[in-house]
Amino acid sequence: MSTPGSSERTKLNRMSYKSSESIADLNSILDANLVAHVGVVIDGSPLVIPMAYGRSGDEIFLHGSSGSRLMRVLETEPEVCVSITELNALKIARSNFNSGMHYRAVMIFGKAKVVPMDQKHHALDVVSDAMIPGRVSEARPTTKKEVAATLILSLSLAEASVKISVNEVDDPPEDMNLGFWSGTIPLTSKAGEAMPADSESASLAVPESIQRFISKHSK
Amino acid sequence: MSTPGSSERTKLNRMSYKSSESIADLNSILDANLVAHVGVVIDGSPLVIPMAYGRSGDEIFLHGSSGSRLMRVLETEPEVCVSITELNALKIARSNFNSGMHYRAVMIFGKAKVVPMDQKHHALDVVSDAMIPGRVSEARPTTKKEVAATLILSLSLAEASVKISVNEVDDPPEDMNLGFWSGTIPLTSKAGEAMPADSESASLAVPESIQRFISKHSK
Repeated sequence: MSTPGSSERTKLNRMSYKSSESIADLNSILDANLVAHVGVVIDGSPLVIPMAYGRSGDEIFLHGSSGSRLMRVLETEPEVCVSITELNALKIARSNFNSGMHYRAVMIFGKAKVVPMDQKHHALDVVSDAMIPGRVSEARPTTKKEVAATLILSLSLAEASVKISVNEVDDPPEDMNLGFWSGTIPLTSKAGEAMPADSESASLAVPESIQRFISKHSK
Repeated sequence: MSTPGSSERTKLNRMSYKSSESIADLNSILDANLVAHVGVVIDGSPLVIPMAYGRSGDEIFLHGSSGSRLMRVLETEPEVCVSITELNALKIARSNFNSGMHYRAVMIFGKAKVVPMDQKHHALDVVSDAMIPGRVSEARPTTKKEVAATLILSLSLAEASVKISVNEVDDPPEDMNLGFWSGTIPLTSKAGEAMPADSESASLAVPESIQRFISKHSK
């Protein structure tokens, strides 16, 4: 895998004070988040759709129903831009001009490739375990019919850029000591209690993968 | 404003069981969220960038630094697709095939218009107050120079689609009573305690707009 931000296109898109060239940062952001916004061009117009994804090594898999319009477009293996954004805090400066958000963000460019039939089951498992680690071994096993009904795409991470907010609030000197407050409000995605869907599930213990997920995301 | 989902393009993008034609739903999703993923076509290729936004009536304003590459492209008033996604729960079915996410999502199509100079200050205030209601009246007032340095765009909500997950876990009968758990894990974006940026801010009371924001987002 090439260094994040090493191509001309990803370079152009970075603000230097927020860029990272670390593959560990890239993987950390991809592994910590659940939703990717996938952009494609259809008849010359942009289309951006939220999708589930999962990383495996130096590629991600994108998953959707094979009936959906986007998936039919993706089946033609078009150029995509995939954007994954993790909002971590609101940055409140003394002025609104200097206010903003603290985030970690990844952008990936490339051609989405249709995963061939003999690798689809593996790719599906990657996406499921990316959402909730350990989930695959606990769920009812995926059937051949289900694998056939799913379109799953892979996208190389060769052309990726990483931005991580590092700047704290940075009000200019002339805004200081006028009585205006400045600071940050941390934001975190938190999990609530697992809610069983029905009486059978209510009679069972909450599966371990789900207990672990909730424990990790309720701190 | 036309009914959400009433154009051919927005109709094609909906899965009927998740669509909403309610303007109240559209506004509720737009007002509850902070980040939009904005897609444009550049030299035939897709580009998707996260941006801050704020709604005013039947349009949204998109805000960025006038130096950034995306903003220079947006200055040409291109066609955009803006996607705003609020993840509310993980849906855990007995099978991974029937698992997924519960979300509320908006997609808006149209041409981004550059907000003219005499309306920019108002538009900036809309974006700031959309992030934290009441913030504009508490911050150091925006200067003419700051207004001039900002590019802000408006996008009509005339062509918007709304999707809201309504389906609970829906395992097929053959998956029942085999000992597999099924249910949901609620996910919420929570605010932590306000963190003052410096000693001046630490000596001041946390502004009311920020106290209200944290109180609302820490339940």
